[in-house]
Amino acid sequence: MNQPALSFEQLQQRAPLALRQSIAAGHYQGHTSGLGQGRVQANIVILPSDWANEFLRYCTLNRQACPLLDVTEPGDPFFRNLGTAIDIRHDVPRYRVYRHGELSEEPLDIESLWQDDLVAFAIGCSFSFEQPLLDAGIALKHIDLGRNVAMYQTNIDTRPTARLGGKLVVSMRPMKAAAAIQAIQITARMPNVHGAPVHIGDPSLIGIHSLDTPDYGDAVPIATDEIPVFWACGVTPQSVVQASRPPLCITHAPGCMLVTDLWNSAV
Amino acid sequence: MNQPALSFEQLQQRAPLALRQSIAAGHYQGHTSGLGQGRVQANIVILPSDWANEFLRYCTLNRQACPLLDVTEPGDPFFRNLGTAIDIRHDVPRYRVYRHGELSEEPLDIESLWQDDLVAFAIGCSFSFEQPLLDAGIALKHIDLGRNVAMYQTNIDTRPTARLGGKLVVSMRPMKAAAAIQAIQITARMPNVHGAPVHIGDPSLIGIHSLDTPDYGDAVPIATDEIPVFWACGVTPQSVVQASRPPLCITHAPGCMLVTDLWNSAV
Repeated sequence: MNQPALSFEQLQQRAPLALRQSIAAGHYQGHTSGLGQGRVQANIVILPSDWANEFLRYCTLNRQACPLLDVTEPGDPFFRNLGTAIDIRHDVPRYRVYRHGELSEEPLDIESLWQDDLVAFAIGCSFSFEQPLLDAGIALKHIDLGRNVAMYQTNIDTRPTARLGGKLVVSMRPMKAAAAIQAIQITARMPNVHGAPVHIGDPSLIGIHSLDTPDYGDAVPIATDEIPVFWACGVTPQSVVQASRPPLCITHAPGCMLVTDLWNSAV
Repeated sequence: MNQPALSFEQLQQRAPLALRQSIAAGHYQGHTSGLGQGRVQANIVILPSDWANEFLRYCTLNRQACPLLDVTEPGDPFFRNLGTAIDIRHDVPRYRVYRHGELSEEPLDIESLWQDDLVAFAIGCSFSFEQPLLDAGIALKHIDLGRNVAMYQTNIDTRPTARLGGKLVVSMRPMKAAAAIQAIQITARMPNVHGAPVHIGDPSLIGIHSLDTPDYGDAVPIATDEIPVFWACGVTPQSVVQASRPPLCITHAPGCMLVTDLWNSAV
């Protein structure tokens, strides 16, 4: 922690393992968008095993919102299926700790919070499908504008378990019709990162009353020849878990994801 | 021709070869929707070889509107790649003959019109993708209403050859957003029958000013929670050829297609 912080440009040069080592050493505490050289970034949810077992059922029932990439054994801080030496206690730039559903702290490391019964979940993220969309020549307005993607609470119920349930959160990207048709085809081939959209067109049909005021992220303008395209979003499980107020839940801070060794084009 | 006509119900029982034999014998002169037991039905265009060579280039350049299933050798009346003993002079229930772009006759047989330089084209048709849509639980309103699908001239230019060119004709099916997303995925896997849609949403963006007045086929109502989905249509090549006024062009009469031996699920 006494070394100087690294610049974003320096970090962009780093392969995933070296990047995680820099993050674990405390040299970077920011967002991971654009880092990791084409590797999968994951949403993180960490829960005590009692809640973890139920959350695993919830993810299984709601795969489009919660595509699981890996789950740890209780007490084991290593993701064994996402790459080399991925220690969830250190490898995320910034965490959020929720106690009984309330945000209590935003640490850079969770070593001191680790418990023998904690289970960590890595959940696929739409960053992985944005690169194939860009590679297909589809412009993504939030990227062009340097903004976070716009996300909205919908009126679509997810499939509940005993204590976990709630509405689906979606991310929205405005596109011309031809690009939307192409984006549906491309993302349908990537079920581990949310898959095909859940809705296109009129936002009010899924309970979104104004696209100008997203519930998470930043608004982007929509042109008259564009159609809004909505994908299930990895914010859903976080929002659902917080609403159920488990005694302890740790997540990544928004935008500060876990960078894995998996290639985006292979999920 | 002196045998009694067969009922539609009798014809539905017939496998493709027996159905074609009944048609060739003059026992049926109607539309083929619902006949052929799940086999591919084809749009037919027949041209003298001079025009045929250019039409083949046109189809190659405009594959989404003109997906070629088979082409005959000049003067050969048999489609060799679509099934057993398919004689294009007899096997279509009803033909249309255009001379210099004008409809001149609607015969049941073109034996007497056959020439040594005629080339026949079999072009994929959206009937083939409607069954997989229905099998996926997607309602098709024109079928529920017993109507022909609605088709529209657009302002989208096709890729021209020297003498052939014009605007794309599309078929339109209204769907709820979730069904539209699914239909895009299903039809994208069927490039030989028009593939993915060319447009979704606002019809005015492709030059269609009123969905209530289709240029071909029948209008269907669109509910407020439905989105219009537009596919390239096999009427495009017919419309383009007629506009160029070749001395002779023979097509199937609308809805009276060639029933082949190919399975819909294999194209």
